[in-house]
Amino acid sequence: MTKPLRLAVAGLGTVGAGIIKIVQQHGDLLAARAGRPIEIVAISARSRSKDRGVDLSGYDWEDDAVELARRNDVDMLIEVIGGENGPAKAAVETALANGKHVVSANKALLAIHGQDLATLAEENNVALRFEAAVAGGIPIVKALTEGLAANKIERVMGVMNGTCNYILTVMEDTGADYADVLRDAQQLGYAEANPTVDVGGFDAAHKLSLLAATAFGTQVDFDNVKIEGIERISLTDINDVADMGYRIKLLGVARMNDDGLEQRMQPCLVPANSPLGTLEGVSNMVIVEGDHVGQIVLQGPGAGEGPTASAVMGDVMDIARGLLIPAFGQPANTLTKAAKSNSGADAEYYLRFSLADEAGVMAAISTTLGDHGVSINRMRQYDHDDNIAPLIIVTHAVSRAKLDGALAMISAMDTCVEKPIAIRIETV
Amino acid sequence: MTKPLRLAVAGLGTVGAGIIKIVQQHGDLLAARAGRPIEIVAISARSRSKDRGVDLSGYDWEDDAVELARRNDVDMLIEVIGGENGPAKAAVETALANGKHVVSANKALLAIHGQDLATLAEENNVALRFEAAVAGGIPIVKALTEGLAANKIERVMGVMNGTCNYILTVMEDTGADYADVLRDAQQLGYAEANPTVDVGGFDAAHKLSLLAATAFGTQVDFDNVKIEGIERISLTDINDVADMGYRIKLLGVARMNDDGLEQRMQPCLVPANSPLGTLEGVSNMVIVEGDHVGQIVLQGPGAGEGPTASAVMGDVMDIARGLLIPAFGQPANTLTKAAKSNSGADAEYYLRFSLADEAGVMAAISTTLGDHGVSINRMRQYDHDDNIAPLIIVTHAVSRAKLDGALAMISAMDTCVEKPIAIRIETV
Repeated sequence: MTKPLRLAVAGLGTVGAGIIKIVQQHGDLLAARAGRPIEIVAISARSRSKDRGVDLSGYDWEDDAVELARRNDVDMLIEVIGGENGPAKAAVETALANGKHVVSANKALLAIHGQDLATLAEENNVALRFEAAVAGGIPIVKALTEGLAANKIERVMGVMNGTCNYILTVMEDTGADYADVLRDAQQLGYAEANPTVDVGGFDAAHKLSLLAATAFGTQVDFDNVKIEGIERISLTDINDVADMGYRIKLLGVARMNDDGLEQRMQPCLVPANSPLGTLEGVSNMVIVEGDHVGQIVLQGPGAGEGPTASAVMGDVMDIARGLLIPAFGQPANTLTKAAKSNSGADAEYYLRFSLADEAGVMAAISTTLGDHGVSINRMRQYDHDDNIAPLIIVTHAVSRAKLDGALAMISAMDTCVEKPIAIRIETV
Repeated sequence: MTKPLRLAVAGLGTVGAGIIKIVQQHGDLLAARAGRPIEIVAISARSRSKDRGVDLSGYDWEDDAVELARRNDVDMLIEVIGGENGPAKAAVETALANGKHVVSANKALLAIHGQDLATLAEENNVALRFEAAVAGGIPIVKALTEGLAANKIERVMGVMNGTCNYILTVMEDTGADYADVLRDAQQLGYAEANPTVDVGGFDAAHKLSLLAATAFGTQVDFDNVKIEGIERISLTDINDVADMGYRIKLLGVARMNDDGLEQRMQPCLVPANSPLGTLEGVSNMVIVEGDHVGQIVLQGPGAGEGPTASAVMGDVMDIARGLLIPAFGQPANTLTKAAKSNSGADAEYYLRFSLADEAGVMAAISTTLGDHGVSINRMRQYDHDDNIAPLIIVTHAVSRAKLDGALAMISAMDTCVEKPIAIRIETV
């Protein structure tokens, strides 16, 4: 029997406890598959006394995660503290600098400091892996960095925030509006008390920036993700798009264009009968398009104790077996600094206008759209009781710049009662 | 720059040509990601003169794949010849015995000789990988052996033969019957002139046996896969099950029961709105259920030049990076010899009877089912013109043994005009 891989676990929240359960429950299985025992040596968390439903008596305790990361009897730090700075960052840096592998589930930390940490890992000849930081239990980082490594990646996209998908799905199913569903989700523990990180798209954008770096060999660049949350999505939009065969998803898309890297996390329409259009509840789905493989779809639980711990332990198993590939799939000093793409691919858009119910309004809208090169594919006007006429338009593919020009003019019209809604239709 | 990984490619059919295209097209990308150049040194195929649409002038030629496998200037053999014996087997054995890594897309070879070859690879301290042998471009072997390696796998299942899924999908869409769709598929090149390997379920069963070994740590055991093809699926069944919210798929299922390993490749019903139920055309889908991760779904192209070559090269990249995990995810001498499970989980079944249109027939059927412990969940009788009455029953969950007992008695009745159809409904 070769020598054991000795772990330190920093952070004993849900995921930390899940990791300890796996190691305790599957010791023999892990050893058989890794070819060596996987042992937890020491742990650290904010509160020592809290009952976490697992027996911690066999592990050394450290009050300070940085001290944990420095221990001589540890080969690897598992960081499941969270937060882009503070003890998580300090502990990860200490571990890497002291020649210990790091596995982290911390999307914020990696999205902000990924390039520096990857460099530090390579300087110290240790691994830094983060499968659990993106799409929970789905082995998507592995698929990108390894399984599909022989492809030029053309697009990576997906639904990566279970809270948002849950809210949108419940709105569709029950006809309840956004605020009510969010409140229920908070009571059920599916959404945080301060939901902005989820519903504002920031959590998902962290994940997208990690996938983009991995897919395109670029330095992770969270600041240049275009982010839009689901807060403005109304039941009206949900119903109107369903009527035309679409569903609304908070969709992340990354693609390398001629002028740089396009990274968007925003509500998009997808065909209801496409894989993304069939995704329900808290599930995540990531789609990768490679030049040789074509389109690969991965779906699974995007969060939770078991799935996240499974992903962390998948990385641990790789390192136990001696796999030492760079964090983002190629050496940190070969990752390029991509410009932000200002073009983006043309797309069809769903538009909803609320218009004064007067003669000539429709003509003014269509003329303005046409003048800006926005061509109408489908148009619907629904029956309405008051004197505000809802008008739905699906455009042909057009650049966002042209569309924005038209919408700015229409918004300025007296007959345009509310700011128009424009949602991109992503081709999938 | 570290030293290059030197490849030999045995077999220059579609997949072999695809591999060469990737190496020629993505040389820089592969080197950046692998940290070393990937070079093709020598090739072998049956005909040297055939035009394969790629420039082969830079590679040494060997008439004999075994000679290719023996070359001193080669680190790895890529075997894309096919066939469970003959030159494929001889070349793979020679390469392994001579200390060369092997990547193979050959499901038949691995399904029959996998245990011996895995043992030979480990004796010679080299890798044997076969991602491309299962579900084309989908990185499912990697997901099972690595990404989900911290889970006890509870079930692995999927649609793994694109030809069958294409035929079933076209029958659904066009209302054409099996024989006509098969003939069209043959003309389009989606089905072989001798289609038995595909439509009889054997190709998919090879793949299932590889996934089962990988998932459950068992010696690959193709002989104990229960195999049933799609040849008996009629348009009547397709329409009747659609009416009840199901679709028919050639579905492989592997699960470890108390009495041994259950491996089935057979037509099953799945809910039309489940991931499997939405799968169209030649796509493949594999679903893995792990005790911590829950359910992971992977979908993608199951065959073809690009996807298969992508999977082969994914394995090549792993080995180039130094990943040396055992073929089936744990050492060959730790793989257990599982008994064949004779129980199998209880399931609901769809039954179709063709009955003489006489008084008392229905009562006889329901009484016989009830006497054997088969409980009826739903029953439908459709309008019929002649004097043969079609009767559709969906049972509650029941063992196959009880059901077979009932069906044997019913088949023996004079009023039972045709052998009853029974299709398992898989819970997904």
